[in-house]
Amino acid sequence: MDILTTKAESPNILFKIAYDGSGFHGWQKQPGLRTVQGVLEERLEKVYGVPVSLEGTSRTDAGVHAFGQCATMRGVSGIPTDRIKTAVNNLVSDVMILSAEEKDEGFHARFSAVGKTYIYRFVVAPSAPVFLRNYTWLLKYEPNISIMSEIAKYLEGTHDFACFQAAGGVHRESTTRTIFRAEVKEAKGKDPAGNTYDAIEFVVTGDGFLYNMVRIIAGTLLEAGFSRPAPKDIQSIIQSKDRRRAGPTAPPQGLFLQEVFFEKTAMEAL
Amino acid sequence: MDILTTKAESPNILFKIAYDGSGFHGWQKQPGLRTVQGVLEERLEKVYGVPVSLEGTSRTDAGVHAFGQCATMRGVSGIPTDRIKTAVNNLVSDVMILSAEEKDEGFHARFSAVGKTYIYRFVVAPSAPVFLRNYTWLLKYEPNISIMSEIAKYLEGTHDFACFQAAGGVHRESTTRTIFRAEVKEAKGKDPAGNTYDAIEFVVTGDGFLYNMVRIIAGTLLEAGFSRPAPKDIQSIIQSKDRRRAGPTAPPQGLFLQEVFFEKTAMEAL
Repeated sequence: MDILTTKAESPNILFKIAYDGSGFHGWQKQPGLRTVQGVLEERLEKVYGVPVSLEGTSRTDAGVHAFGQCATMRGVSGIPTDRIKTAVNNLVSDVMILSAEEKDEGFHARFSAVGKTYIYRFVVAPSAPVFLRNYTWLLKYEPNISIMSEIAKYLEGTHDFACFQAAGGVHRESTTRTIFRAEVKEAKGKDPAGNTYDAIEFVVTGDGFLYNMVRIIAGTLLEAGFSRPAPKDIQSIIQSKDRRRAGPTAPPQGLFLQEVFFEKTAMEAL
Repeated sequence: MDILTTKAESPNILFKIAYDGSGFHGWQKQPGLRTVQGVLEERLEKVYGVPVSLEGTSRTDAGVHAFGQCATMRGVSGIPTDRIKTAVNNLVSDVMILSAEEKDEGFHARFSAVGKTYIYRFVVAPSAPVFLRNYTWLLKYEPNISIMSEIAKYLEGTHDFACFQAAGGVHRESTTRTIFRAEVKEAKGKDPAGNTYDAIEFVVTGDGFLYNMVRIIAGTLLEAGFSRPAPKDIQSIIQSKDRRRAGPTAPPQGLFLQEVFFEKTAMEAL
């Protein structure tokens, strides 16, 4: 520990982070609650010997997972950047650093991000899906996947997505966002006991998302998969800007923050 | 609820059960602790309206999983056997009934069982294995799988397995067991975020297992995979009947009770 270190000398480090959200009250630090930011800052403090503060890209909710959350840390030094991961990670933890990289002084995990990819997973419950409950929305019946897929395409482009914003709280900023890709597809999964299952994945990439937006879209897509609304209605739901016209908020455990983009070209090429 | 029901009139029901052991203090009911037996009996009591008692085949330890544990229940009636599963299960639970089947009066989940298959999974840790920690033994280095596989074959047959019995406690019964199949193989896995990984699976079927036997064998196999003992030593370890000659007890989370056999022919045909 070098107590003479000044901020000017310390690198600006970008972490890519993975976590199983099941045991966390979300990303953001909250007194008395186990959060991803709280646990990571504690571990980093042990390594650096001084208080450490992380700026995360996305404030994921309780139960939401990430395999590509990002966060920047500045103001501390003394550990070679390529050693931090090893110093902080341990193999039995539910949060781990995927990579650490030095960035320019002006770089910021939230303000420098130009977009994100989220994946929401539904699974039509196989027999006794005891290993899936924390990682998917388990369904009793099979929705119509081609309708969900058709609906998802209407989300692409620049729209005012006010209808997909959680009610409550003051929302002063613009509710217009650009979705670069929105698709619903089938995927094969395998649970820890070796049983295979079929998942329905909603993959969405956009320049930003309103509060609970991906989960509300997931709920709306599922309603469509169970026959309401009809595909053409999605446009009128968006135009209504009315949260009550959209579907229910999907439960958090199906949601994964998959990737954060800091360069527009990478995202637009999707 | 039919309070006039007598034991003689009630069916003897065999349940097949799946559970994620992560949130349980093992199978066996214990005061003040959340156990699989305790949770299941509670749910069955709600359905039947009277106290219910389960006899499980295997007393799996805390953290051990099952996709094929068995238990019998007798002395209650009033629910058609084919309806119990639906009445007891809910989709977001970590323990679920796979099937319910009526058996002869003399049938007992433990005493009628003639063998079991367990699977123990090791995974050489990929980057940030946050979704695997509760379901595998995460390894930092790759063991020699062909040595592990070779060693496993020496376990097959009828042997005195005292060396693989956990120390402590009085062990009056015979420590001789028959292993019908013991093999180590590679398998592909997929975590809930969609990342694939390579698992090493130790699959073992036997007519019975001593306390912690599968986990001690798993620890011994892994030691062999890291070059001690040499394959030929496994026979001398078994002959020694000395627990100290065997390897460490593998952690519980890699262990899955996969199948219980009630007919010798089915098991011997493996």
